[in-house]
Amino acid sequence: MLFECGFLVFVINARGEREEFDEGKVLRTCIRAGADRATAEEIAHKVASRVRDGMHTQHILKMTLGLLDKIGKPEIAAKYDLKGAMMRLGPAGFAFENFFAEVMQEIGYATKVRQIVQGLCLTHEVDIVAETKDQERFMVECKYRNYAGDYVGVKDALYTYARFIDLTEGHIAGKCPRFDGVWLVTNTKFSSDVEEYARCKGMKIMGWKQPKDASLSELIESKKLYPITVLRLIDNFAQKKLASAGLLLCRDIAQMSPEQLRNLTGIAKKKANTIVDEALKVCGVE
Amino acid sequence: MLFECGFLVFVINARGEREEFDEGKVLRTCIRAGADRATAEEIAHKVASRVRDGMHTQHILKMTLGLLDKIGKPEIAAKYDLKGAMMRLGPAGFAFENFFAEVMQEIGYATKVRQIVQGLCLTHEVDIVAETKDQERFMVECKYRNYAGDYVGVKDALYTYARFIDLTEGHIAGKCPRFDGVWLVTNTKFSSDVEEYARCKGMKIMGWKQPKDASLSELIESKKLYPITVLRLIDNFAQKKLASAGLLLCRDIAQMSPEQLRNLTGIAKKKANTIVDEALKVCGVE
Repeated sequence: MLFECGFLVFVINARGEREEFDEGKVLRTCIRAGADRATAEEIAHKVASRVRDGMHTQHILKMTLGLLDKIGKPEIAAKYDLKGAMMRLGPAGFAFENFFAEVMQEIGYATKVRQIVQGLCLTHEVDIVAETKDQERFMVECKYRNYAGDYVGVKDALYTYARFIDLTEGHIAGKCPRFDGVWLVTNTKFSSDVEEYARCKGMKIMGWKQPKDASLSELIESKKLYPITVLRLIDNFAQKKLASAGLLLCRDIAQMSPEQLRNLTGIAKKKANTIVDEALKVCGVE
Repeated sequence: MLFECGFLVFVINARGEREEFDEGKVLRTCIRAGADRATAEEIAHKVASRVRDGMHTQHILKMTLGLLDKIGKPEIAAKYDLKGAMMRLGPAGFAFENFFAEVMQEIGYATKVRQIVQGLCLTHEVDIVAETKDQERFMVECKYRNYAGDYVGVKDALYTYARFIDLTEGHIAGKCPRFDGVWLVTNTKFSSDVEEYARCKGMKIMGWKQPKDASLSELIESKKLYPITVLRLIDNFAQKKLASAGLLLCRDIAQMSPEQLRNLTGIAKKKANTIVDEALKVCGVE
């Protein structure tokens, strides 16, 4: 931000680097999370007035969420922290694999997670096998990262491609079905050489903000495929119960009555009411 | 070992696993390090009599080296701990790359380390580019590990192969010279799926004891290509001086006079004498 006197404020991001505080980013994220322009401007302005040089972005996030709660918009707070919600899927990668499989189903693929497939030389565990209605089949490798500043580097892209090659050769040798393409997906970022390599090899990549026109965050927001971890009135215990019942998306909960949720998960009545209510708000159904 | 009463003794290896103590291994290692059979039997028997259940193999190694020193065979002790000498090349991988490049030169290759090569999609740093007299060219990837219990897994083999593919395709596109094959080398072990993958893809692998008939340890021993880190009368300071002067093999030092070594490295007279003397003994030139 620019103060009236013209000084820039620098904050510390998840990677521990100094970066210029950007009031516009708060504004845009509020709008993406469902706030109207006036609310978004109010929040962004309040946050900007409280930010101090050297503040950690994590601290600024908490402050923003607190402000959204305060003005009676917890459902916007929930979606505002979508990146954090992805981090709460972990620590193991399988929850992200399950989540992304559901995302793929939403965009028209039939999916199976963690499939053992025999290639030419090796047996591979494919994170997601995804098929279109026209029986095009894709190998999807998920790289889940627990740390927001982390990224997926070129070695991961190379070995993913080598697996795809082994499956392609495996198909020619009659060992496995045909795979028509390969995806590499992450909840964080890809390094620039991964982008270059993927473009060159025809490997599809999807990261939190990559590619610009079809990123994971954009897909989640546009299709309202919010993971249950965006819900802020949910504790670890309830989160586990929901996950055990195969409930990964807010939308699935928003479509239920509290009674159905209780029967499916064993979550207590009051808590089930709260969860369904928040899920409805997050999904924009009131 | 088997005591006369028939009990086995179990020791703790570098991976922290319990394994049966093997007197025969001490015997064979002594012989490989240059001991005659009687000396090897004497040492192995003494070690066996002192080993206790739950002892760490690192402790047993120290005990064995002490016994070899005691009977006036420090040059055998030097070679006995060849694996440890490889670990002392680190912590960075480039010393191992330089060392293995010298090993390859010995077996007939012209080598260049850390070469930047443009593939079809990416620019790669190739650890060693090795060429035969017939101008066959190999891409060599070195995986140096600092920890004896560590190993090289299939992801490393897959991404190494993907790099080779990118260079092969780069050659077809006229971006780089032709590479006729790919090697993957480590100072520790490969997992069994790496062996399987390498066999299937025609990738040459060389680990400390793999493949059985042409492993790195066997190559070093048969050609006497001992790294300077086997020398036991050498300190860190001298090791750095030798490395800075490009001296990586005992053999190179054994071929010098103490004066030449002094002039080349600036190591003090007495120390230079000791180093050349030990190098001569290790290389079997007295």
